[in-house]
Amino acid sequence: MAALRSYVNGAWHEPADNGVPLRDAVTGEEVARVSSAGIDMAAVLAHGRGSGGPALAELTFHQRAALLKSLASHLREHREELYALSARTGATLGDSKFDIDGGIGVLFGYSSKGRREMPNSTVYVDGAVEPLSKGGTFVGQHVCTPLQGVAVQINAFNFPVWGPLEKFAPAFLAGVPSLIKPASQTAYLTHRLVELMIGSGLLPEGSLQLICGSVGDLFEHLTDQDLVSFTGSAATGQRLRAHPVVAANSVRFNVEADSLNCSILGPDAEPGTAEFDLFVKQLVTEMTVKAGQKCTAIRRALVPANRIDDVVAAAKARLEKVVVGNPASPDVRMGALASLEQREEVRRSLKALLEAGTLVHGDPERVEVVDADPERGAFLPPLLVRCDDPDQPQPHEVEAFGPVSTVLPYETTAQAVELARRGLGSLVGSVVTADAEFAREVVLGAASRHGRMLVLNRENAAENTGHGSPLPALVHGGPGRAGGGEEMGGVRGVLHHMQRTAVQADPATLTAITGQWVPGTPRNTTKQHPFRKHLDELRIGDTVVAGPRTVTLQDVEHFAEFTGDTFYAHTDEEAAKANPFFDGRVAHGYLVVSFAAGLFVDPDPGPVLANYGLENLRFLTPTYPGDEITVTMTAKQITPRVGAEHGEVRWDVDVTNQDGASVAKYDVLTLVAKRPGEQGAS
Amino acid sequence: MAALRSYVNGAWHEPADNGVPLRDAVTGEEVARVSSAGIDMAAVLAHGRGSGGPALAELTFHQRAALLKSLASHLREHREELYALSARTGATLGDSKFDIDGGIGVLFGYSSKGRREMPNSTVYVDGAVEPLSKGGTFVGQHVCTPLQGVAVQINAFNFPVWGPLEKFAPAFLAGVPSLIKPASQTAYLTHRLVELMIGSGLLPEGSLQLICGSVGDLFEHLTDQDLVSFTGSAATGQRLRAHPVVAANSVRFNVEADSLNCSILGPDAEPGTAEFDLFVKQLVTEMTVKAGQKCTAIRRALVPANRIDDVVAAAKARLEKVVVGNPASPDVRMGALASLEQREEVRRSLKALLEAGTLVHGDPERVEVVDADPERGAFLPPLLVRCDDPDQPQPHEVEAFGPVSTVLPYETTAQAVELARRGLGSLVGSVVTADAEFAREVVLGAASRHGRMLVLNRENAAENTGHGSPLPALVHGGPGRAGGGEEMGGVRGVLHHMQRTAVQADPATLTAITGQWVPGTPRNTTKQHPFRKHLDELRIGDTVVAGPRTVTLQDVEHFAEFTGDTFYAHTDEEAAKANPFFDGRVAHGYLVVSFAAGLFVDPDPGPVLANYGLENLRFLTPTYPGDEITVTMTAKQITPRVGAEHGEVRWDVDVTNQDGASVAKYDVLTLVAKRPGEQGAS
Repeated sequence: MAALRSYVNGAWHEPADNGVPLRDAVTGEEVARVSSAGIDMAAVLAHGRGSGGPALAELTFHQRAALLKSLASHLREHREELYALSARTGATLGDSKFDIDGGIGVLFGYSSKGRREMPNSTVYVDGAVEPLSKGGTFVGQHVCTPLQGVAVQINAFNFPVWGPLEKFAPAFLAGVPSLIKPASQTAYLTHRLVELMIGSGLLPEGSLQLICGSVGDLFEHLTDQDLVSFTGSAATGQRLRAHPVVAANSVRFNVEADSLNCSILGPDAEPGTAEFDLFVKQLVTEMTVKAGQKCTAIRRALVPANRIDDVVAAAKARLEKVVVGNPASPDVRMGALASLEQREEVRRSLKALLEAGTLVHGDPERVEVVDADPERGAFLPPLLVRCDDPDQPQPHEVEAFGPVSTVLPYETTAQAVELARRGLGSLVGSVVTADAEFAREVVLGAASRHGRMLVLNRENAAENTGHGSPLPALVHGGPGRAGGGEEMGGVRGVLHHMQRTAVQADPATLTAITGQWVPGTPRNTTKQHPFRKHLDELRIGDTVVAGPRTVTLQDVEHFAEFTGDTFYAHTDEEAAKANPFFDGRVAHGYLVVSFAAGLFVDPDPGPVLANYGLENLRFLTPTYPGDEITVTMTAKQITPRVGAEHGEVRWDVDVTNQDGASVAKYDVLTLVAKRPGEQGAS
Repeated sequence: MAALRSYVNGAWHEPADNGVPLRDAVTGEEVARVSSAGIDMAAVLAHGRGSGGPALAELTFHQRAALLKSLASHLREHREELYALSARTGATLGDSKFDIDGGIGVLFGYSSKGRREMPNSTVYVDGAVEPLSKGGTFVGQHVCTPLQGVAVQINAFNFPVWGPLEKFAPAFLAGVPSLIKPASQTAYLTHRLVELMIGSGLLPEGSLQLICGSVGDLFEHLTDQDLVSFTGSAATGQRLRAHPVVAANSVRFNVEADSLNCSILGPDAEPGTAEFDLFVKQLVTEMTVKAGQKCTAIRRALVPANRIDDVVAAAKARLEKVVVGNPASPDVRMGALASLEQREEVRRSLKALLEAGTLVHGDPERVEVVDADPERGAFLPPLLVRCDDPDQPQPHEVEAFGPVSTVLPYETTAQAVELARRGLGSLVGSVVTADAEFAREVVLGAASRHGRMLVLNRENAAENTGHGSPLPALVHGGPGRAGGGEEMGGVRGVLHHMQRTAVQADPATLTAITGQWVPGTPRNTTKQHPFRKHLDELRIGDTVVAGPRTVTLQDVEHFAEFTGDTFYAHTDEEAAKANPFFDGRVAHGYLVVSFAAGLFVDPDPGPVLANYGLENLRFLTPTYPGDEITVTMTAKQITPRVGAEHGEVRWDVDVTNQDGASVAKYDVLTLVAKRPGEQGAS
């Protein structure tokens, strides 16, 4: 059998020794051999930092997002091939889709987040401008810039595709090169994935490297600019995090470890309700998908004490229908565990659980399998434990990383919360209830020990993505036992790969650094109206000043009549005076912004195509009849759209009165055309 | 001398032994003795978790913010007493103000951030609602809830007031009880601070505890819900972070360590410019404030190679005027180091620096002092080192934690960036330049190794808060050598004490959990117009539906004429058709929102006092003449103001057309009165 190659230093590397065999989970046949012998780990890190990082730094967030989308499409075209290889890990087609389509979905998700929620530049501005001085000459703002190191991504065996892609996508979007290290057991699938990714030709050289086999002395060479994200067992995570180089250099180290996740049935969910059925169905699904080898699987099913018999009976009825066997066989619902070693490990953990409870479904030593050899393949039946004393420690401490769950009773909402918290830190917990108050109490009570909490009921049953599915828009990770980490969560996951830096400066220098116009920066008020400039001609700071226009009492009365907005503060002098904020009748805020638009607009057809929105509007000073308003409008942020004929321009608008006081401040959002033929430009 | 007491388990604890003496930095006299003997550390943590946490959980963010403000005012009244005690640490009055007024400023700053940027509730909603399904029955949002543990705050000796308060304020606002552990050397000042804080009677019991002396076996009892924030030497930080209980329970551990911060003089800043003078002045200030015992002090002064002689000469001229001595003496500019041991440590580090450079000002063994005994007090003169070879390792590796800086030359901007980065992670770097482009290159080039970067020039000279001053609105901390931590930064620092949890649910349940109305939640459309309800009567989900109103061509033409907004898309059918987004003339967005206001408003005087703003407005579908618009307005978030007669209500507004398509969506912000006599309520 061929040894898996690593992709390092811009080339595919053949291992220097024979490596160790990786076996088909179903047949026991050797699939490949794995070894990282002969790889110079320091050189791999240096290549990422020296080639991958600088190449990514040339691209804007939107350009990286576009590459992620292309990459996702490329991988989608090769799904079938990945499914076939995935079956050798013991996965059914459903399991494989969960892993492979899920991973591709993360790429699409991050592409979308990057385009929608990040600027088309290389610097991410985090949060508002902070005023640091009375006179306004000294201000602050936070910027995020990519770490100038390598994201070392150590993956678990159970998701050979989703795992690496879930870590790669935010790193790539951040501009940080990835070094993927798959778990050996299923490394052949990740290996093929990376072959496809490199083969796509889409990724800048050095932005993605792969090490099949052990990491060797890699950790010795980590700096403060590298980061490690680890998924796997808590014990390994703790050992790696304690590496002296990690400690000495304060290397960012994210751990996502298996946890004892719970699912809680609400007291409202009697047998016969939709929620009762949803709870049992989800429990069985979580036990059987990936043969229960999911760090997010339900290990503890918490049910009202007076329902435990019903739940166990209903779960058994469903579990009896689960067909175990060769995942390539169409009738099979649950495939094999990843390896015989894994099966032994699960059997050991089950034994510990059975010190506290009784096995009510399945026999760990006997399983009927379809189309496979039960001795050569790592098969187990679903195994359900019932533990009538929820204060026994084992269900809250022992994780059997396979098709194993324990049903436990609770008496009160407070006890349900307390038992949920007994997991000492979980990736996810779910609550199955139609009672919003119960959901609120449990979620808020247990939240500080959970990275994600899901409420399942008849309202969302058809669209719910389920207890076990992390999503790119939501954080994945949890406190304590779950490792104390956080991944994904949309842009949050990107920022985990960047350094946040508080920048303090005068407004003009801050504008130069962030590329976004900061109030106080000198404005460019040349003769040409900025609405007459195409996107590539427009510059941050380009300004139009227009007015003054007097707002008359007649205007206010007319606007009230015309729009129907006859609110007393605009129409009744006495009543307006009695209002704590006004000295008498005031102009409508909507009148002020409408007049402002009348002042700043350049009416003829030109590059400005539409006003698509408005943000952060604050009315700061009332406008009284007779006041004269002037508007100052300045280009604040320019966002060309990759591949489109236009981009977005955010304008800072300040409407002032005859005393120079700001009447209203807001951002106007417009679409502005590129010059014809410029749409290819960033 | 009396031993300092600890405040634990709701009482002042006398140590069980005599403890060790703490000496006046100026006279060497014993000030107090310190010991934590006899304290049951597990009980202290349990008291914080069991009493402090639950008491804080009863308060909203705004109530906690109000307490921080009262506490700050209380401490401000006792400033003089703290200044006097501070002088015994070797601090001049200026140094003391930096520490004490700075610390009180953090309390005020967090009080303000809490009221302005956090909700008046106990749950912080982080980020937008994430759509997770096509049909809208399944959505996600992140909530942050306080960790149900104790914030263990281990402080450095150099800021006995600012240090503890900088950690306490965000923890308190988050709802997490604090356990303050001062560095022994200056613990008597922190001890008095905490006496004042407890004595104020403002803080819920258990929300603040104090341990003077060693932490004993405290770390053995930490759980995943506790967190540690450490300020001090990198070596101690690393040792504590590697504690097996910290690793096993994934205890959050923030380290803020001394770093080799740099200040860079721009090539534009020739002698005679404002920037040249600012650079030299700031360098001398940073060397002498707190006798250079600041983790943010400038250790490396990077100057253009052709200016090094000028800089050294100018710095020497200023340093010669620095009067060292008894900080209580009015002429004294620089006081003593915190202890004789500290002075020995600085002398040792200086010796290492002098392997790479030469001493150009000061003698570590000889110092003239005013009004003090140079042998009994821990005095040193300012010590300036010149190192002409910037590639020598010592200046970038050896920190002399006293009045010591090294001047180093650079040739190019790229080299300046590279040298700044050689600190391998700094709390702060500064750039002194009037050249925005130079500032941009250096800041963005070095940002990933800095927690804060400051640009100083003639524009902000008068208002600049300086290289050495962390501010509550900005993050404090840095990567690598600086510990890899992050504190403060406004609300960010609060969230470091909370767990972020992704919540997935149907909209109605999500609304129940967050207390903020999520689109898709059933609306309450009772007869009574919600504008007629006082703040305490109004409920999330209260809705007014109004319309339809037909938008006529005449309306559009009239609005164009009236406001002056004659943009062609509203006035010229042919030109509008040529626009890629429109099929013909469209109504003004401002017309649509004005008509919407005319529809939803309830005109008579009532609880709704004013519309003070508008957010997140998006025009989603063009409105063509003849379209009929309907507006649906729903109370989304209700924020009573503590101590005021009104509060804020955010309304969700959805303007739809005759096809049910959303024309515009936005949030309207209003001020709504409480019922008379209700202003005391939260």
